[in-house]
Amino acid sequence: MAGKNYYDVTDWHVGNPYTDIGEVINSILADIKSRQQETDVNDEGKPGAVIYIPSGDYHLKTQVKIDISYLKIQGSGHGFVSSSIRYNVPQEQWKDLHDIWPGGSRILVDLKPEKNDERSGAAFLVEREGDPRISSVEFENFCIDGLHFVDDGNGDPENTYVNGKTGIYVASAQDSFRITGMGIIYLEHGVTLYNSDALSVHDNFIAECGNCVELRGAGQASKITDNLMGAGYRGHSIYAENFGGLLVASNNIFPRGRSIVHFRGVLRSSVTANRFHSFYPGMLIFEDCRENLVSSNHFLRDHEPWPPMQGYDNGLNDDYGLIHIEGSCNSVISNHISETIEMQYLKPAGIKPVVIRLVSGTENYVACNHIVATTQADKKEKEGDSSCFDAQVGALLSMNELVRLSVDAVRVDAASSDNVILDTCRESEAAMDFDINVFRGIPGK
Amino acid sequence: MAGKNYYDVTDWHVGNPYTDIGEVINSILADIKSRQQETDVNDEGKPGAVIYIPSGDYHLKTQVKIDISYLKIQGSGHGFVSSSIRYNVPQEQWKDLHDIWPGGSRILVDLKPEKNDERSGAAFLVEREGDPRISSVEFENFCIDGLHFVDDGNGDPENTYVNGKTGIYVASAQDSFRITGMGIIYLEHGVTLYNSDALSVHDNFIAECGNCVELRGAGQASKITDNLMGAGYRGHSIYAENFGGLLVASNNIFPRGRSIVHFRGVLRSSVTANRFHSFYPGMLIFEDCRENLVSSNHFLRDHEPWPPMQGYDNGLNDDYGLIHIEGSCNSVISNHISETIEMQYLKPAGIKPVVIRLVSGTENYVACNHIVATTQADKKEKEGDSSCFDAQVGALLSMNELVRLSVDAVRVDAASSDNVILDTCRESEAAMDFDINVFRGIPGK
Amino acid sequence: MAGKNYYDVTDWHVGNPYTDIGEVINSILADIKSRQQETDVNDEGKPGAVIYIPSGDYHLKTQVKIDISYLKIQGSGHGFVSSSIRYNVPQEQWKDLHDIWPGGSRILVDLKPEKNDERSGAAFLVEREGDPRISSVEFENFCIDGLHFVDDGNGDPENTYVNGKTGIYVASAQDSFRITGMGIIYLEHGVTLYNSDALSVHDNFIAECGNCVELRGAGQASKITDNLMGAGYRGHSIYAENFGGLLVASNNIFPRGRSIVHFRGVLRSSVTANRFHSFYPGMLIFEDCRENLVSSNHFLRDHEPWPPMQGYDNGLNDDYGLIHIEGSCNSVISNHISETIEMQYLKPAGIKPVVIRLVSGTENYVACNHIVATTQADKKEKEGDSSCFDAQVGALLSMNELVRLSVDAVRVDAASSDNVILDTCRESEAAMDFDINVFRGIPGK
Repeated sequence: MAGKNYYDVTDWHVGNPYTDIGEVINSILADIKSRQQETDVNDEGKPGAVIYIPSGDYHLKTQVKIDISYLKIQGSGHGFVSSSIRYNVPQEQWKDLHDIWPGGSRILVDLKPEKNDERSGAAFLVEREGDPRISSVEFENFCIDGLHFVDDGNGDPENTYVNGKTGIYVASAQDSFRITGMGIIYLEHGVTLYNSDALSVHDNFIAECGNCVELRGAGQASKITDNLMGAGYRGHSIYAENFGGLLVASNNIFPRGRSIVHFRGVLRSSVTANRFHSFYPGMLIFEDCRENLVSSNHFLRDHEPWPPMQGYDNGLNDDYGLIHIEGSCNSVISNHISETIEMQYLKPAGIKPVVIRLVSGTENYVACNHIVATTQADKKEKEGDSSCFDAQVGALLSMNELVRLSVDAVRVDAASSDNVILDTCRESEAAMDFDINVFRGIPGK
Repeated sequence: MAGKNYYDVTDWHVGNPYTDIGEVINSILADIKSRQQETDVNDEGKPGAVIYIPSGDYHLKTQVKIDISYLKIQGSGHGFVSSSIRYNVPQEQWKDLHDIWPGGSRILVDLKPEKNDERSGAAFLVEREGDPRISSVEFENFCIDGLHFVDDGNGDPENTYVNGKTGIYVASAQDSFRITGMGIIYLEHGVTLYNSDALSVHDNFIAECGNCVELRGAGQASKITDNLMGAGYRGHSIYAENFGGLLVASNNIFPRGRSIVHFRGVLRSSVTANRFHSFYPGMLIFEDCRENLVSSNHFLRDHEPWPPMQGYDNGLNDDYGLIHIEGSCNSVISNHISETIEMQYLKPAGIKPVVIRLVSGTENYVACNHIVATTQADKKEKEGDSSCFDAQVGALLSMNELVRLSVDAVRVDAASSDNVILDTCRESEAAMDFDINVFRGIPGK
Repeated sequence: MAGKNYYDVTDWHVGNPYTDIGEVINSILADIKSRQQETDVNDEGKPGAVIYIPSGDYHLKTQVKIDISYLKIQGSGHGFVSSSIRYNVPQEQWKDLHDIWPGGSRILVDLKPEKNDERSGAAFLVEREGDPRISSVEFENFCIDGLHFVDDGNGDPENTYVNGKTGIYVASAQDSFRITGMGIIYLEHGVTLYNSDALSVHDNFIAECGNCVELRGAGQASKITDNLMGAGYRGHSIYAENFGGLLVASNNIFPRGRSIVHFRGVLRSSVTANRFHSFYPGMLIFEDCRENLVSSNHFLRDHEPWPPMQGYDNGLNDDYGLIHIEGSCNSVISNHISETIEMQYLKPAGIKPVVIRLVSGTENYVACNHIVATTQADKKEKEGDSSCFDAQVGALLSMNELVRLSVDAVRVDAASSDNVILDTCRESEAAMDFDINVFRGIPGK
């Protein structure tokens, strides 16, 4: 049925998908290429194929190498479960767990990455030179699981977010790719693409990865929308460089993440209508960025409530800024920003936290943001045995006895000038040279 | 084909899916559990399965009980049709109708709910105690149809929005569930979940239900995005309680709905970039809510234009507020709010409607909202025989002769103080104690 | 397997899907209708069916005519590649290309449209009179390719965006349709629907079409969300008329497009959290529109950087306004708008460009928009042989030596009055009668 261009990995005559799905998919790819060789006969070309991965556990020992357009790899379940929680449960309790591993259509990445060779650790490597750029490869609704992180010397291997593995690595320029409905877990890099055009990363679950989505090289006109994501403390949830016209919208990004969104050399792009939650400063970082819009987002920064991870952070001090902007002509409009932290966790001790910090550049426009900064005078440390969910929800919902935390709601460094800051804080919460910036504070009563 | 973890309900040896799909799915679930018992062999676990429901009418007489992770139930069509319109067409015309019932991959919920036992009326009951929380169950692209509402004493049974039935009921804490592409119709409760984490309710059609989506208990880090929804006049389109980090974005929610969004004890969450339409006050209700963002939404409240439903409303008076906020530190920024209603429909007669009402709490921030309040001096009641679509579109598009309606654009009650209200109305449209709130009106010419 | 309501076009006994998939699908439709005739037996009706199109090249010589509800047509790949780039590559290089044609589950529209008969050129024609409106037809994840444009007399046929072909044409009122994950390419009209209710056009790739999405007649309560789109210079990326409650959100719309969004007689609708990029004035056009919200969007207008298309534009002068509003009570809040253009490209020469223009109507509300207008003193024309991607990304990222361009950031014509313009520009950048409009400029230092 379904013609020759429909493949089921459990129904292919070469290899065993349960012991090495990589060998099976590469064999299927060879078959597609052997059958589809003509580019232009009767207006027909090489339409590609769909490779279906039913629910199941599939070890991957051989890297999948994709160099054809119009390939769709599709599963029947993103299969996320929190491996981080499990690894931080005492192992003697594992026998009582209903599930140990993620599930769905699950790829177990058994690759052994070579040191300093990022490509070697990619479960799916997409690469093709020449014209046109490889186009319309689609990844949909399966799970890529890196299984374990590795020790970095601290003796806490499963909390390092390091293992040299990548889920999907697109090494060459590509057009109109789709990544949808995936679950991507316990990989050092979830999804890494170079030179993207018209990319869609939509409605995925990419969490407990060192980094979630990285757009490297350069690119344009793409969207990262409606995802649930959260990287480890060492990496980015979303990273982009040298990009124009990127839309980051309607994502719910949770901790940890060294940053939530880190843009370097990104221009004329949008970060809108997202919900961002972080345990550290530096939630949104713009380096050498211009004419971007940050609007209608909810930012929350509080302190790590879960004991196993309280020893880790991203190393930044609290005056770095939750929003840290180097660049010109960016817009920060109509956001809600909550920072709530007990005084003893400020880093370094006694520092005044900064919420929005304009570090360098000119003519940024910051208007109509609502900043709520609070602290709790005498909060007790949570008991060490509360679950991650209970700890996080408890922290989110425990708001009694909050008192105002003194912050620099907006700080403009000397290297940044001609900015416009309107209705975002009182003058007493603003640290800037009022002679070289425009400031209108929230009026008094 | 497709390995052992792919099931088609029309191709299973136990039961008959057309007469009782519940028995069939429960039998499949038993099969999955009998085959998947080991949690950790060679890093493999219990990957779950996919159960496929092709297009068709499937009666459900037995409740489906799901207690395994990584289960995907997938159909081939959300199958919505307006049952409300049909039930309000004279029955002698039914013989001329192309379609009577919803379609697609349609589950007919024939359960007989027991009184005061909400669970008994659930087509799909998900429940599992112990650790980890049940994870990654996915419902995709089928239709759950409750068929009929029941009389509540008014002799108008199909317009009661009451029948004790629920589409999907998740009774225990759960992680990373997905509900996508579904059609959910004529149920008292569409989707009800307790203690959700990282839930995605995305791109569904949930309408003509008593309530659409209810998130009960507590929860965090979830999204309700890009849905078309509309509850009955007795229930909520979106309800959440004790939740942190909920993202409600890019939904188009239409009448009726006692409320569009009702949050109770919800914190640090977002309602952004939605389109909301209601026929009653109380579109957005925050009870005991804190630090939430309401931004870039379009609110429209007008009067019920469709004769069969004009006898019903949500019982609230017009001074309740279209946006009704009890709580502190919330943000209402950059929304458009249209209220248009003929004077004779004001409730009680002669009352001055309230658009944004801050009832209690402190330090809410209301800025840059555009409020358009209009009335029509001498509009004639529409003829009784216009179709629902014509009546609604006609009402939406008939804007001639609108004149300004006198409202309290922003009212701040005495129990709410230290709020900031900027650029949202003229001083003459603001009702508050200007000594204990900050107010900057839209300037005069 | 999969019951009787699952059809695979490659496995049907009538016709040959590779030579005429239209004949095959129409035969399948006839089969569905012959089997599904009763509307109400045991609460069952006509559930419809799913028609699966595996990856492959399928010529369509016979128009598909759909007149049943609950039909799903589903493929395994949207298959986009840039045909525009290919057609502008010298043909002697084609032999070296990896791919010539789009792919995935690809319909080749071989219809020969009759002149002045738009319907004759539609690959999929949906039409049914009577009640209820045809409902819940779903198009998912396949490719509709028009293959070629035709000469309009300029001797540059493949760049005309004219061929009389339409991908999906819905001629009669319809309810709850879904268009998802599609690729729609090289058609004069991508998707055209009349009288839509509760339509979802979500997560598609609709590009290199004369027009992308057109909502004609009238309609309500629909969404166009999370799409990648870009029309030709002659048509609209999004057009709607006489519509209430349309949500246009989270789209990334790129050039060219005579307009990005053109609303005529549209009311109480939303354009939020989009990223829009254009090479011409008239990006967002409201004609006779009322009470709409335009918020949190990123607008970029720059000059066409790709040599093959530099001879074309939409004919509008630079004082037309990037945002052009005829109508009342609309809101333009919290947008970022970048215009960057070298002086020699201004049209007509020497004109002062207009960014936001209120042409007629009253009481529009324009607040907290950030307008960045720049030019480059002595930019060299790009070499003619750079690729489209390089040209566009190069243009997006080349920002050095930008200097301020003198513009009317906001112009209010005499026919428009009682508008409110706040914090969007300096007084020197505003052209309006300050006596009949409210204006508060960005403060000075």
